[in-house]
Amino acid sequence: MPLFGRRKKQTEVAEQPEPEAPRLPDPPAPSINGLRSMQDHRDYLLSLVEPLPPFGQNLIEAQGLSLCEDIVSHIDLPGFDNSAMDGYAVRCADVAEAAEDNPVDLPVVGEIAAGDGDLPPLAAGTVVKIMTGAPVPDGAEAVIPYEGTNRGSETVRIFAPGQPGLNIRRRGEDVTAGTLLLNEGDLVAPRNVGLMAGVGIDKVLARPRPRVVVISTGSELVQPGNPLTGGGQIYDSNSYLLAAAAKAAGAQVYRVGLVSDDPDEIKQTISDQLVRADLLVSSGGVSQGDYDLVKSVLPELGLTDFTEVAMQPGKPQGFGLIGEHPDDRVPMIMVPGNPVSAFVSFEAFVRPVIRKLMGVEPYVRPSERAFATKAIRSVKGKLQLARGIVTADAGGRRTVELVGGHGSHLMGDLARANALVLLGPETEVVPAGQPVAVWMLADG
Amino acid sequence: MPLFGRRKKQTEVAEQPEPEAPRLPDPPAPSINGLRSMQDHRDYLLSLVEPLPPFGQNLIEAQGLSLCEDIVSHIDLPGFDNSAMDGYAVRCADVAEAAEDNPVDLPVVGEIAAGDGDLPPLAAGTVVKIMTGAPVPDGAEAVIPYEGTNRGSETVRIFAPGQPGLNIRRRGEDVTAGTLLLNEGDLVAPRNVGLMAGVGIDKVLARPRPRVVVISTGSELVQPGNPLTGGGQIYDSNSYLLAAAAKAAGAQVYRVGLVSDDPDEIKQTISDQLVRADLLVSSGGVSQGDYDLVKSVLPELGLTDFTEVAMQPGKPQGFGLIGEHPDDRVPMIMVPGNPVSAFVSFEAFVRPVIRKLMGVEPYVRPSERAFATKAIRSVKGKLQLARGIVTADAGGRRTVELVGGHGSHLMGDLARANALVLLGPETEVVPAGQPVAVWMLADG
Repeated sequence: MPLFGRRKKQTEVAEQPEPEAPRLPDPPAPSINGLRSMQDHRDYLLSLVEPLPPFGQNLIEAQGLSLCEDIVSHIDLPGFDNSAMDGYAVRCADVAEAAEDNPVDLPVVGEIAAGDGDLPPLAAGTVVKIMTGAPVPDGAEAVIPYEGTNRGSETVRIFAPGQPGLNIRRRGEDVTAGTLLLNEGDLVAPRNVGLMAGVGIDKVLARPRPRVVVISTGSELVQPGNPLTGGGQIYDSNSYLLAAAAKAAGAQVYRVGLVSDDPDEIKQTISDQLVRADLLVSSGGVSQGDYDLVKSVLPELGLTDFTEVAMQPGKPQGFGLIGEHPDDRVPMIMVPGNPVSAFVSFEAFVRPVIRKLMGVEPYVRPSERAFATKAIRSVKGKLQLARGIVTADAGGRRTVELVGGHGSHLMGDLARANALVLLGPETEVVPAGQPVAVWMLADG
Repeated sequence: MPLFGRRKKQTEVAEQPEPEAPRLPDPPAPSINGLRSMQDHRDYLLSLVEPLPPFGQNLIEAQGLSLCEDIVSHIDLPGFDNSAMDGYAVRCADVAEAAEDNPVDLPVVGEIAAGDGDLPPLAAGTVVKIMTGAPVPDGAEAVIPYEGTNRGSETVRIFAPGQPGLNIRRRGEDVTAGTLLLNEGDLVAPRNVGLMAGVGIDKVLARPRPRVVVISTGSELVQPGNPLTGGGQIYDSNSYLLAAAAKAAGAQVYRVGLVSDDPDEIKQTISDQLVRADLLVSSGGVSQGDYDLVKSVLPELGLTDFTEVAMQPGKPQGFGLIGEHPDDRVPMIMVPGNPVSAFVSFEAFVRPVIRKLMGVEPYVRPSERAFATKAIRSVKGKLQLARGIVTADAGGRRTVELVGGHGSHLMGDLARANALVLLGPETEVVPAGQPVAVWMLADG
């Protein structure tokens, strides 16, 4: 039994090494004063999530989603030569001399409406009445619109000549069969929906809206709509802010009630939510404080990375792949609890991850340019993400002014802003009139 | 019985005049070559619809909707002086001389976490440990962050002085009670959601998304996904195009299957839909053709206005207030059946009406400016709405080039465009380098 012998030998030889504890791939090395750069951190997060698998969706449902297939037309558009006007289909020779002062009378041998098919060819010396969109019969070379006739029924008087092709839309002049209409990755805009329907497509392969679960942590938090009863309580604004921002970014959002600073409650809540989440977003509990429990508890639930990013606000950041089973882990982004920090972190990290899950490029908001109306001061050593009000003139030229202070708790100023102003780690001052990079914030 | 007598007399005196048939208010007079201008027609339609009544909506549901109330804060934000850092709350005099080479040791008499209340005042010569966001006790004047200490528990060694107010966020420095935060008519952006939640508001009065019912008419139409069986058949693209565009404009959309050119079927379908519609949109059947039945049938269902607008494409337009009861009539916009005409009519008339129903200003897309890369030719006498591709440089300066032909059936070109280029009735040519007005089309 040499076969068994060989097998046994192999088993003996292959000694099992101690299984290594699973962990996230190595994060990028610090590059700015011992801190990770915003771009490195974002690239790291993006490297750890994959676009959601697509499925066949109704065209209208797919509006705003990312196509996951190339769309090729299988038909010509128009599918047949058809009339661009209401009028009379003619042979050109029969009306070559027609004019206001030299009308031509011709017998009307039929009438073609949009949708009619199986048409007899047009005999010389005759015309047919034809409606817009109706197929042009063989033999007909032009359509004389009503305005060039007396609109006769049995005989029509024609006052104008027609060159070949006049008022005829040719088969395939819009789209020919085999044409690539849209590419994988294209966003499904209303105009694309119309085009796909026009070539007969009613379903497309598209990635769904990610299901994003939003959690606020902190024993000091009170649900809006309820009274503040204790001296140190504040309203939970972050779960509302992040949920609305995720919805505006295209996600389907579940806002979970706030969670207190209790390790078991945090673990239970997060575990309960895994089943319906493509992404978890929490705020609070990721800093150096003694009550920053998200940071201390999450490593028990999955693979995590807590770090400091060279940005202000938004320095403490956490990421995890949460869940027991390697194939079934849900990404989680943990942002700091100050409202402005939370919002800036959303723009810098959460929104790009949502867009990657949706398969919608560009993942990162395009960095646009605006000219400072006044000098803008910054703090060296970190990327500053200041709040700004951008104004564009009719030609599109943008100017920007900072709004309010730098404090990461100033929600009133954040609400008034319509842009984040990105001031690099080397920047101390941007003189008036010079350009800065801005992320324009969506309003809807 | 004088009472009866008087009543009888009044009845006799008040002679009933023949009741006038109800009709729409007088439409604007033609102003361009016997046709109505696009702006006049739009203003007329907007004058005949009113914003939908608002109701109380959950903050996150309200995202993207229009506020129907002024929002005033009833609380200060922050609601109390609180710490901006994790560290130790101190009296300034106790650490006035503290330095790296002159540390000060002080007893730690307690610890304050976020959410704690009812705090004893801080006695001179003592400190309390304090977390970010936790209330600062009476007597404490500054917070020395962990980095300036040895992080001691019973006694802490402090290496840095603190000026009054250092790392303390003052009550009301973000928002004071009584401040007007948002105005009626403001769009609810994610940042506003966060701000309102932060001051304890969980519901706002906002106008709902209009329910828009979309209908395509035409016996030649076939539902996408099914085979074309007859020679003159085409796929119904308009109901998909218009439904997706209405959805992108913020509406809740019901796409009704296509309706053939049968008067009874058209009447029945429209009557059936009134109950769930804030706006009906139909395409097709509004021109001069013998089978343009929408135009001939709709006057039986309500008050209508069929007209020709000095625009290309989109010349034939219909509007109605449909339904039997004056208080219960539903606006209906009837656009022409060529796909490009339908889309341009959507942008010119339907989208503004949807936005007025939502109460979201501006109703009309802002007219932006782009510079022609090549000379653009136009046809005098009508407003041309050509399809264009606009490119913006990093500073926002836009250039535009027309895409494809003028034919109102060219869906492929429409899908490639990202803007409509508005060329006025007086324009014959726009030289290269000169600006034109554009409407930028949304992609989502």
